[in-house]
Formats: sequence, C-alpha cells, structure tokens
Amino acid sequence: MGFEAIDPGFEARVRDSFRQQAVMATIGAELADVAPGACEIVLPYDPGLAQQHGFLHAGIVSTVLDSACGYAAFTLMPAGAGVVAVEFKVNFLRPAVGELLIGRGRVVRAGKTLTVCAGDAFMRADGVEAHVAVMQSTISRVGS
Amino acid sequence: MGFEAIDPGFEARVRDSFRQQAVMATIGAELADVAPGACEIVLPYDPGLAQQHGFLHAGIVSTVLDSACGYAAFTLMPAGAGVVAVEFKVNFLRPAVGELLIGRGRVVRAGKTLTVCAGDAFMRADGVEAHVAVMQSTISRVGS
Amino acid sequence: MGFEAIDPGFEARVRDSFRQQAVMATIGAELADVAPGACEIVLPYDPGLAQQHGFLHAGIVSTVLDSACGYAAFTLMPAGAGVVAVEFKVNFLRPAVGELLIGRGRVVRAGKTLTVCAGDAFMRADGVEAHVAVMQSTISRVGS
Amino acid sequence: MGFEAIDPGFEARVRDSFRQQAVMATIGAELADVAPGACEIVLPYDPGLAQQHGFLHAGIVSTVLDSACGYAAFTLMPAGAGVVAVEFKVNFLRPAVGELLIGRGRVVRAGKTLTVCAGDAFMRADGVEAHVAVMQSTISRVGS
Repeated sequence: MGFEAIDPGFEARVRDSFRQQAVMATIGAELADVAPGACEIVLPYDPGLAQQHGFLHAGIVSTVLDSACGYAAFTLMPAGAGVVAVEFKVNFLRPAVGELLIGRGRVVRAGKTLTVCAGDAFMRADGVEAHVAVMQSTISRVGS
Repeated sequence: MGFEAIDPGFEARVRDSFRQQAVMATIGAELADVAPGACEIVLPYDPGLAQQHGFLHAGIVSTVLDSACGYAAFTLMPAGAGVVAVEFKVNFLRPAVGELLIGRGRVVRAGKTLTVCAGDAFMRADGVEAHVAVMQSTISRVGS
Repeated sequence: MGFEAIDPGFEARVRDSFRQQAVMATIGAELADVAPGACEIVLPYDPGLAQQHGFLHAGIVSTVLDSACGYAAFTLMPAGAGVVAVEFKVNFLRPAVGELLIGRGRVVRAGKTLTVCAGDAFMRADGVEAHVAVMQSTISRVGS
Repeated sequence: MGFEAIDPGFEARVRDSFRQQAVMATIGAELADVAPGACEIVLPYDPGLAQQHGFLHAGIVSTVLDSACGYAAFTLMPAGAGVVAVEFKVNFLRPAVGELLIGRGRVVRAGKTLTVCAGDAFMRADGVEAHVAVMQSTISRVGS
C-alpha cells in the first residue's frame, strides 16, 4: 500500500477500540493483523450466524468487512480521532461456507475527513481460501 | 406498491424461512409484518450488538435490512423458490441509538431472476422514529 | 419532503450552476423542476448516447441522475457553497428506451457536510413512464 | 487474473461491440487494451464533458468505467452472448482533471449469468497517473 501511520501507537489504538466493539465478541470475531492502512479480522464459522441455507448471513460477512475497513482507515488517523461508516456496498461472490471467515480491509484513498476503503472476504475450508465477498466503503473521521 | 403474490401461502413461507435464519434468533430479531412485496423486521437495542460508541453496529443494521429486503422479494416468488443476496449498498444517516431498530424492505422491481429492493431502517426512541439507514439491494431467485 | 431552503435564491443558483455543467448541454439534458430538496432533469432520447443494443447507456442515465441528486442537495445549501459527488450506486431496472429520460433527485438526509440523496429515472414512451433506474448517493458540500 | 477466454475471438467481439456503443464515439472514448477478464478504455479530457468546476463529470467517469467493466465480463463469454449492467457503485477519489482518463475494468468473479467486476479510473496529467475513481459492478449475460 505504501501508507504510513502518523500515530506510532496505531496498533494499540485499533486493538483497544476493537475490544470496545461489543458485537465483535458477540459474534466471535477476532482481530488478526493490523498494519498502516490495513486490517484483518477473522470469524470462525458458527451455525448460529447462518441464514436459511446454512451459509454465514450476508449481514454478518458485511459486519466483519465493515469493521476491517473501518479499522484500516483508523490506522492512518491521529490519536484522539474516531471513525464511523458513511456507507458501504458489498457484492457476494460465493456462499460463505467453510471453517473460517477472513475479512481484509485496506485503504484505497485517505482524505482529510473521508477515507475510501476496499474489503475482501474469504472462507477457508480444508486449507483453501475462497473469495466470498468484496466491499467498497466510505469511512468518516469524527471527533478531534 | 400494488404487488400481488402468486403464492397465496407467501406469509407462512416467509415465517418458516425466517425461523431457519439462525442469525435472526442469535441477534434477537423478530419478523413483524409481511405483505406482498414488503417485509418488516424489528430488533430491540442490545449493547452486545454495538460498535465502539454504543450505536448498533452498521453491519447489524445491514443484517436486519438485508433480511427485510430478501423476504420482501421472497413474498413474490412461487412456492419452492429460494433467495440469496447478490449485493447491497447501505447509507447510514444517523447513529443507531434508541430502543428498537425497525427494518422495512420493499420490492422496487421484480424480475424473473433478479429483484431490486429498497430498505429503510428506523430507530424508535421515546416513541419517535428516526431514519437511520437506507439500503438498495439485488436479490436473486435460486432453486426451482 | 418538507425541506426548507435557507437561501431564497436557491433556484437561480441551481439554474446558474447547471448552465456551467458543460456536459449537460453536450448530451442535450435540460433542467426541469427545482424545489427545496428536489430536482428534475430531462434528456430526450438520442441514438448517439446509446450502448450496443440501442438503449441509453447506463453511464448516461447515471450522469442525469447524479446531477439531479447533486442539485437536489445544492438547493438546501447556503449561497456560496458548492457540491461534489462522493459516491453513488445505481440499479438498472429496465432498458432505457423511449422518447424522454426523466431523472428525479431528492434529499433523503441533509447533514452539515454530507447529504444523502435518492434518484429515480423514468423513460417516457407513448405517454407512459417506465421506471428504469434507482440511485442512492452521497453528495459533499465544498467551499465556503 | 488467470482468466481464460472460452471464445478465441473474444477481442474482435469486444471491438465490434464497442464500435456499436454510439456513446463511446460521441464522448471521444477509445478502446485500448483487451485481455481475458480485462479491458481498458481511454478518454481525452474535453471541457464539453465537464461539470461546473471543470472536472470530468462523475457520470462520464462512470460511463467509461461501466463500459470497461462490461467488456471485461464480455471477454469471458461465449460467442453470441450479450451483456448488460445490472448495477454499479462508484467512489470518487480525486477531481478528474488532466489530459487523459484511463478506465480499467477487470473481472473479480465470473458466474454463469452474473459477473462481478472492479474498475479503476486514473487521470494522466504531465505523465503522472492519479487514481480518481473505483467501481464495483454486476454485469449480466443476456441472450444466447
């Protein structure tokens, strides 16, 4: 990506905020990698998060991708700033079945207030990752 | 809307499928109204579904709206058909805080395979509904 | 909608800006109605704007809807402000064939900096309007 | 990408269809590269395609990206098939000013009927390319 974080404490800041996103613990999501302009969140498959055919619900895939994109944007912000989702769009490529959902968010363009991100979701099954969704989103900086 | 359901058993079919969407029970969502081309799902506010500022997570709002849109499309399909989300886009208008999230989905255009839907989410707080999100989505018919 | 314009000169301001959108004259689009929070732009069908099947190109339908949404947002801004598109999403409902494309934009939520709009495009053929596209967009205020 | 075209005549088929998209000639767009799962279209800057600040109108950028994505999808289809845009979403990253707009479309996932594509638009100015827009779109196969 070639992004540089202006706050050297960006990773701690992301991990701290992630712990405060109660919904992440509720669905069983965990923060994996954090890097300047990028974030990965994983979610073990759970039948309690499925839709009527047993696939992870599109909204749950979106929840993981939205947080991954939001935290990717958050890594590039100064200490004290916050982020909220302005909008996002997701295309679903394949049924989200397997053992583990991997949501990767990355910054496409970081503006002063608005950051555009891209997200990719994969399902790992028997060691193979299948691409299950793509997100394009806008994140807004809020607060100081 | 002026939509007519070709399957008179559309409501039972929607209620049945909703019960099989395990994620709905997991997050505490309930199916409210079902009509030809329209569906309403409600979700009591729960701090366990919040993001870092205490608002319902954007992904949870999307989960409710996606199911509301999907079932709105499902009402117009023949018995035996199934539905999956092809894609959706959501704009977030206000923080989702209050007592109850109300997600309303409606069919904009029902095609043979693809149905375009619109969704509106409201948060009820002290008896007042605030418009918190709008969705535009594509649902595909699958199966017989 | 129930919107009120804070600048009583909003209509003149929209018409003035529209004349400066050179692309509108190039494709033959005309500004029809302007009201607080709403704007209508029309475009006579022209085979020179078509795609390979003779329908108006999806990008041309989007051009008209984007300007209709942008000007809908612009009506609610103070004198001196400008607008740019942050993002938009369009679903195409039917082939855009007929005599006249009618693009209607309206404000869904007007924020301090960002305004969320909805657009509907219709094709008039033999006096009947067919719904051909829906847009959901974010417009940003720029300048003073 | 790793895509393979099942029709060895895919490039001639794309170039042929492009010539039938009358709007491409009207705005001055030219087909540059075509490869399995990818397509590039260029458009010299023209003040007659600008919005009120002199940037290429967002709808024109979308027109080029939509055709680039549509033809990227088209390269992977059998002879005799056609394509139409189901929906697309575009985020605008920077003002589209410079000498040449370059729109690159590529297939993300090719399904039997629906193909998901991604598009990137760049403006070349003084030999430097700036990323001005990203698209995420769904293309449907039509016809035989």
